[in-house]
Amino acid sequence: MKEFQVIELIKEALAESAEADWIRVGIGDDAAVVSCSPGMDIVSSIDSFLPGRHFPVDAPADLVGYRAIMASFSDLAAMGAQPKYGLVSLTIDGTNQSGIDWISDFTRGCSSAANKIGVALCGGNMSRGALSISISVHGEVDKNKACQRAGGQPGDFIYVSGPLGSAAACVRRNDLVPVESHNLSPTQEAFYRPSARFDMSKYLESASSAIDISDGLVQDLNHILERSCCGASLESNLIPLGDSAELEDGLFGGDDYELLFTSSKDLASVDKIGRLTKELGIRVDGEAVDPRGFDHFSIEFES
Amino acid sequence: MKEFQVIELIKEALAESAEADWIRVGIGDDAAVVSCSPGMDIVSSIDSFLPGRHFPVDAPADLVGYRAIMASFSDLAAMGAQPKYGLVSLTIDGTNQSGIDWISDFTRGCSSAANKIGVALCGGNMSRGALSISISVHGEVDKNKACQRAGGQPGDFIYVSGPLGSAAACVRRNDLVPVESHNLSPTQEAFYRPSARFDMSKYLESASSAIDISDGLVQDLNHILERSCCGASLESNLIPLGDSAELEDGLFGGDDYELLFTSSKDLASVDKIGRLTKELGIRVDGEAVDPRGFDHFSIEFES
Repeated sequence: MKEFQVIELIKEALAESAEADWIRVGIGDDAAVVSCSPGMDIVSSIDSFLPGRHFPVDAPADLVGYRAIMASFSDLAAMGAQPKYGLVSLTIDGTNQSGIDWISDFTRGCSSAANKIGVALCGGNMSRGALSISISVHGEVDKNKACQRAGGQPGDFIYVSGPLGSAAACVRRNDLVPVESHNLSPTQEAFYRPSARFDMSKYLESASSAIDISDGLVQDLNHILERSCCGASLESNLIPLGDSAELEDGLFGGDDYELLFTSSKDLASVDKIGRLTKELGIRVDGEAVDPRGFDHFSIEFES
Repeated sequence: MKEFQVIELIKEALAESAEADWIRVGIGDDAAVVSCSPGMDIVSSIDSFLPGRHFPVDAPADLVGYRAIMASFSDLAAMGAQPKYGLVSLTIDGTNQSGIDWISDFTRGCSSAANKIGVALCGGNMSRGALSISISVHGEVDKNKACQRAGGQPGDFIYVSGPLGSAAACVRRNDLVPVESHNLSPTQEAFYRPSARFDMSKYLESASSAIDISDGLVQDLNHILERSCCGASLESNLIPLGDSAELEDGLFGGDDYELLFTSSKDLASVDKIGRLTKELGIRVDGEAVDPRGFDHFSIEFES
């Protein structure tokens, strides 16, 4: 199959998710052209996803696509941004029938996630080589209102947007493959179909700092602490745990893509798990913990 | 070396090219935040670069970085956009000393190219795996003024921004490696240090269509023709050829990143190589040619 035929196939699989009223020029030109709302800043991020590292080699392609889109846009949710569009660069080894099927399934997965959060996938790139996915994501935020990692103050409450640890439990149990994409267990659902939590933007407006939990609660909290120059005290019984998750999964497991944020406001409707402290470091139930978690250079899937 | 140490090293190598007055939040948060000028549209593109496919496996890392940035931003030059920022996702296998050196050299090359065209590299991503580079690039263009592939009219003149074929001659002669990055032959210079032709934006304002020549003059011209629903007649003696380039290199070789554009205006200061025609297809000196060129799925470097 020729490159242009593959691109046609992708456009077909994307269907309406390739379009939005803010897209002036979409797939098929040198670059996409997107309108920018007056008074808004652009928020941009890029992520890559590799088999055997970020997802199992034999994971269903539609789930790989769904997860990659959600995980990528999650960074924008953590900034309090409104998501608008993404560009997908796919490197894949050959375009025999199984390659074509993979591309088609992958694209449908991307499209499904894009539709769920209301973004357009309006550009991309294809190369031949070992399977690798890179996604750049873009959104808007009110000028100077992006919620950053820096800004947390001692005394601020620490919140998480939802239950943690299910995705890590799925990895721990080695339950990621084989899996049928239409029939997932709760932990597989957590791993493969996370939600970029744009619904939390109303809380982030008054947040002092925020991050998405991709590498584990303790490690991502540590990123906030480093930038905010303070410490944190957590209460383990307040940490919401997802299906099959143990406390270790909730503290150190990544891949949930819930948001972690701090605020001086006492919010009743979000899970409050502790407070920022003047004293540096992280304590859980008064005990110091190491900010270990997912290091992109040190941990690998068994595959 | 840990991920955060590598990121510190990258920030050091980027130096001032990580910053610009339009960057509100740069490297080190979940996403970059960039101000958008009033009345402008955003122009975005993504590209990936793989060893053995887009550059030789043993090419010097600084040249790989330089070329990747220029080749990526070239797509924005072809839209008549002003470049603003880029995000770089690097996948590299391990961070032993040779890996660290590669990352450092690569980043210096990226930084050098970014400085040359006045853009900021304000975000990115690192993963461990087979070497692969993905770059998303972003700029601005006056609302509804982006120059597209569609729009060419029969009778329009066809222009190219500079000499073609040198990069292809370098590939043809198998002269890409080994190479010292400070001592390049003219054809190596063409391959490794192309220019994204933002200096052509004044001509693109009155252009009816445009594209950058990454896959070869004939193939990229064909993209314009397909979208503009017309044909083209070229005169071979008018095609400017670069150092060591033969006509075949100029017609079918890629990698030069000069711009190809059409205009009803008779410009004296740009190389005019032919005209668009009502009759479909491409003719060179009256002879029909096949729109062959670089197909990302069919051609591979010998390596």
